[in-house]
Amino acid sequence: MTALPVAITLGDPAGIGPEIIARAFRDHGDTLRGCFVAGDVAAMRRAARLIEPAAEAVRIPVAALDAVDDVADVPPRTIPVLQVVPDPADDLPWGRVDARAGRVAADCVRWAARAALRGDIAALVTAPLHKEALAAAGVDFPGHTELLQAEAAAHVGCSVAEMPVRMMLANDELRTVLVSIHLSLRDAIDAIDAVTIPRVLQTLRIADAALARSLGRRPRIAVAGLNPHAGEGDLFGSEEVAIIAPAIAAALAEGIDTAGPFAPDTVFMRARNAPGHPGEYDAVVAMYHDQGLIPVKYLGVEQGVNVTLGLPLVRTSPDHGTAFDIAGRGVADPASLVAAAAMARRLAG
Amino acid sequence: MTALPVAITLGDPAGIGPEIIARAFRDHGDTLRGCFVAGDVAAMRRAARLIEPAAEAVRIPVAALDAVDDVADVPPRTIPVLQVVPDPADDLPWGRVDARAGRVAADCVRWAARAALRGDIAALVTAPLHKEALAAAGVDFPGHTELLQAEAAAHVGCSVAEMPVRMMLANDELRTVLVSIHLSLRDAIDAIDAVTIPRVLQTLRIADAALARSLGRRPRIAVAGLNPHAGEGDLFGSEEVAIIAPAIAAALAEGIDTAGPFAPDTVFMRARNAPGHPGEYDAVVAMYHDQGLIPVKYLGVEQGVNVTLGLPLVRTSPDHGTAFDIAGRGVADPASLVAAAAMARRLAG
Repeated sequence: MTALPVAITLGDPAGIGPEIIARAFRDHGDTLRGCFVAGDVAAMRRAARLIEPAAEAVRIPVAALDAVDDVADVPPRTIPVLQVVPDPADDLPWGRVDARAGRVAADCVRWAARAALRGDIAALVTAPLHKEALAAAGVDFPGHTELLQAEAAAHVGCSVAEMPVRMMLANDELRTVLVSIHLSLRDAIDAIDAVTIPRVLQTLRIADAALARSLGRRPRIAVAGLNPHAGEGDLFGSEEVAIIAPAIAAALAEGIDTAGPFAPDTVFMRARNAPGHPGEYDAVVAMYHDQGLIPVKYLGVEQGVNVTLGLPLVRTSPDHGTAFDIAGRGVADPASLVAAAAMARRLAG
Repeated sequence: MTALPVAITLGDPAGIGPEIIARAFRDHGDTLRGCFVAGDVAAMRRAARLIEPAAEAVRIPVAALDAVDDVADVPPRTIPVLQVVPDPADDLPWGRVDARAGRVAADCVRWAARAALRGDIAALVTAPLHKEALAAAGVDFPGHTELLQAEAAAHVGCSVAEMPVRMMLANDELRTVLVSIHLSLRDAIDAIDAVTIPRVLQTLRIADAALARSLGRRPRIAVAGLNPHAGEGDLFGSEEVAIIAPAIAAALAEGIDTAGPFAPDTVFMRARNAPGHPGEYDAVVAMYHDQGLIPVKYLGVEQGVNVTLGLPLVRTSPDHGTAFDIAGRGVADPASLVAAAAMARRLAG
């Protein structure tokens, strides 16, 4: 039995997505074996030219696929690309918010989501898109996660509310699962889909189920507080007592192995698993975007992988953005994308 | 000329303060040369017994000082203690919030602050106190910083508002200066003394002045945003555009070398100065407590030192708390206290 292919979506064609994909196939061919680009052949040819401008002869070739199954026949050191958007996207200026680029990026993700939900591919790895370009294109989602959630809900025939997802950021030493992501800090406290008992509990359920599958045992999950010192006995905020502790109690009653709320400034250090520093927990539930992302990224973004938990598909992505400031120069580091592809393969089994 | 002594305040006598001070004098006598404990002789004798329970003969002696200047005459491997509270505090149960313990802790800090403001000591290093114990004692300050600020304002004869201070957390690779500290996350956004143009600008002024003194050159200061992706063009919050960017512009107009607002999840990684990873900035201004403390503590709290910037005295402290869960067992690590004493000596010149 051959494993199903893994799709890597193009990302915003004005960002670093195409060039890190090209570099990943050129320099990490073994890791990317069985992967293909769900995107645009012309944009990938431009990226392939970009990364070896001074050595035309050794340029890595782009192979246009007729179908997903053709991936197996593509020779090594080749970039297999399935054309999933109608028009070539190789004329977009680098590093600029562009409605057309946003549309291309969204279309590639939609295609890959549907292919994964149909069972045609094993997983998807999403190169970065730019949220302002999505908005300019009239795409009504702030990011990948929400778009995938809507696709999965439509496929399953349920509402988006019945398809809760959470973002996990992981590197070799730390996993954090986020209660909320793309909200202003104010909304991350106050909005209806922010720090509530049902939402914190749901985060624990999703993290428990997903990590149990990937670890092969029940995970130990720490829960961060929201406030400095986790409120320090109600002196600096009441969410720990009123919301987070009851959610933890409910999760414990369901058999989830969790503890907290812990002071946010030390819980990540305690969960960190490094040589000579065994982590006390398998993952930390973080109450908002930056609380969870600052520690995962601190040692270098190239090591981090973004995993969407809770969906009936496997999706990973690098934990950086489109990097418009360096797009088109061929200098962007593909390490996080390569790590994301490796993790996607691992999670897909 | 002999350097003035440095006072180490006792901290909450029910916490790990006394025992880490005792271990620091026992194991790091060279670093602590010229330091003495501003505290209680009986509490320090209890701590000295605690750390070597099985070897009475080699117990480190406690020397009761008659005056600050006697520090110079104390032999090595001795703990010099000046009695600055009226009653012995060696009968308090370990690891419990206690009004009497809170009172002792506060009295030690007040004594040391006044001694520093008078010029009798070079600096103060504060062992941890417990905020609930302070509150139980009726001390109307949430922590050291606010207490020191009030003492300094009273000494100078100005209002507390005219004596703005900021907390800096520093280790070998990262310095962060905090716009606000002991506020709930909600108040850290909304309260009057939170993220405002004057307050962010004041933070930049204080950081610039203090770091220029200690580095001997003007520091390069990065400013973190408040929201995910620094608001990403106003999609997730408006504070970057409305507040932080104007504060940065005003600071630049004053000649301060600063830039931002940057995405909070990567700015600390960019400022990190480690072997093979030169930091882009000398310090990062963080918008709230955990944003700045999570990255400094991620690699281990024992490396971090807390420095109060903006006061007419030098004050450092370890970046951990009273650790009531392990107090009285003699196992607490004095490394951060030792680092704080070394940094106090460096800053005091």
